[in-house]
Amino acid sequence: MSAAPHSAPIHTDALVIGAGPVGLFQAFQLGLQGIHCHIVDALPHVGGQCVELYADKPIYDIPGIQVCTGRELVARLEQQIAPFQPTCHLSQRIEQVQTSPEGWHVRSDQGTEWLAQTLFIAAGVGAFVPRSLSIEGLTPHLHQQVWFGSQSLPAFAGQHLLIAGDSDAALQICLDAMDTAASVTLMHRRDKFDAEPDRLAAFEAARQAGRIRFVAGQATELRTQPAAQGERLAGLTYLDAEGQTHAQPFDHLIMALGVSPKLGPIAEWGLAIERKQLVVNTETFATSAPGVFAVGDINTYPGKKKLILCGFHEATLAAFGAVAHLRPNDKTLLQYTTTSAVLHKRLGVA
Amino acid sequence: MSAAPHSAPIHTDALVIGAGPVGLFQAFQLGLQGIHCHIVDALPHVGGQCVELYADKPIYDIPGIQVCTGRELVARLEQQIAPFQPTCHLSQRIEQVQTSPEGWHVRSDQGTEWLAQTLFIAAGVGAFVPRSLSIEGLTPHLHQQVWFGSQSLPAFAGQHLLIAGDSDAALQICLDAMDTAASVTLMHRRDKFDAEPDRLAAFEAARQAGRIRFVAGQATELRTQPAAQGERLAGLTYLDAEGQTHAQPFDHLIMALGVSPKLGPIAEWGLAIERKQLVVNTETFATSAPGVFAVGDINTYPGKKKLILCGFHEATLAAFGAVAHLRPNDKTLLQYTTTSAVLHKRLGVA
Repeated sequence: MSAAPHSAPIHTDALVIGAGPVGLFQAFQLGLQGIHCHIVDALPHVGGQCVELYADKPIYDIPGIQVCTGRELVARLEQQIAPFQPTCHLSQRIEQVQTSPEGWHVRSDQGTEWLAQTLFIAAGVGAFVPRSLSIEGLTPHLHQQVWFGSQSLPAFAGQHLLIAGDSDAALQICLDAMDTAASVTLMHRRDKFDAEPDRLAAFEAARQAGRIRFVAGQATELRTQPAAQGERLAGLTYLDAEGQTHAQPFDHLIMALGVSPKLGPIAEWGLAIERKQLVVNTETFATSAPGVFAVGDINTYPGKKKLILCGFHEATLAAFGAVAHLRPNDKTLLQYTTTSAVLHKRLGVA
Repeated sequence: MSAAPHSAPIHTDALVIGAGPVGLFQAFQLGLQGIHCHIVDALPHVGGQCVELYADKPIYDIPGIQVCTGRELVARLEQQIAPFQPTCHLSQRIEQVQTSPEGWHVRSDQGTEWLAQTLFIAAGVGAFVPRSLSIEGLTPHLHQQVWFGSQSLPAFAGQHLLIAGDSDAALQICLDAMDTAASVTLMHRRDKFDAEPDRLAAFEAARQAGRIRFVAGQATELRTQPAAQGERLAGLTYLDAEGQTHAQPFDHLIMALGVSPKLGPIAEWGLAIERKQLVVNTETFATSAPGVFAVGDINTYPGKKKLILCGFHEATLAAFGAVAHLRPNDKTLLQYTTTSAVLHKRLGVA
């Protein structure tokens, strides 16, 4: 990978880490308080678990919404926060958080830097990172011969491709590549796929026509060969259901295995932690560090339930906590969106 | 008034006092936990302040609902709690709450009695009771010659009526009565009304036609006359804008002056109180009394904000608190409405 770009940090009053439903509502409550925020998420889209894990599944316990899917809830929240125009930074994972007299220095794996006066950790069960095959030696070949299906991929014209996975994304990569690649092989541990009927039908038709090959097996080892510069991947070996080992050559390996959450470096930011959760007070949902709040599934306190609606409450009190931190002399009383002219102006409904 | 009926108390696991948005959502969260509840409210309808004070005004900060009126929010919550069929007791104000080894004995002003294992006080700013003219001696004549406009009224055919108020309700009572009453007079301190344009136009037309009379003034004193049994109201005196006293005779006085919240006897139930708010812990929103929870605007704790969405969170944790109280050996883990077969069955979506 190329070195991260070096640039001046983005100065902001508030940085929200995590664009799940609670992170989005955090932006709303900050907006009501007149605080603009930046939001950063490891996924290429907003919505977090709601979109990644239950986009089309029903949720019944959002107050006032009898039923909605994860995707619908996120769309509703996006609409609600629109007046406040938070700045979203997607496909970026926070790697470093450091305190300083000027504020919190935060840096993503893409090299983006922020200097934030307050931080809101709404990271749920952690950053969702693409799942990898559990074989050794993949990392040095990333973005050379090994790719994640969730990232933007090169054309692969005239190349022999091995795709790992059974999802819609995996099948679509096969279908997209079959016209230009030299060969397309899909590998999954069994001949059964977790995909939409239409896409599955297209895939099976291409397979019948011999344009896509399928192998059932579990990858065990990478195979390499000497090359002009160092070594090059030649393919991998896999075990079939009978325990037989086979070789599968490829020019490129594309892993479309979904995502899994990783708490990642949050544990190293110097905040009080209890069983991998950030300890907060229930007055402002502040962590042990001044100006750092934790809301949603990542925090813990007596009585904590990991429910979205509880995260909404936490984000609300955290926004009031941020006001006390950013504007310590502000003695504004609680205002209501129903009656406050100030809030109407901020909401754009004046 | 007739004496309250004497009957056996209603046995229930949970009694929710207050049918505002938070009380309604309390019933939802109890339902998810498999606990049926009774709800009681002083108003003749559910919805509390949401319907009484801002039925048609917009609310912008319910998570996932960009904008809705108070009435819409209540309708949405009613729909959401429908699967759990809570038993509603309206137009009843709780007068007495007493602990006993069997549970909490609760009694309303209508004589209804409950024996409840858990109590949820979701009474907002108190019970909404109809506003009265501030003159002495009204009470003995209630339901004889003095009435509240919010209650069901007799026909009043051939009677001289004085209606006090300036609202839609006050004007509508005049319009309804003018065909059968001997005379209809509306009294308000000034010749200006807080009513819908259509109703106001109908009222002004009837006034022009001499079918309704209007007097501007402030009631000062009741006037009585001897009657066969004790004494009878003959009318009242009022001050006009110039400070002149006038007499206004009536057979019946109907007060349509809106409602005002009264904390009422809650202060006498032996619960810890701080500046008229019930002190709760933030783990289960339990008050100082075992099995009694307080949620929404009536409670207080460090960081408390009187917001509906915070009440939703409080009601949720209070329902978990009730489970711990009612089924102390229940070690059920948190279940999600998205995935739990048990919750789907309770919600009727199995």
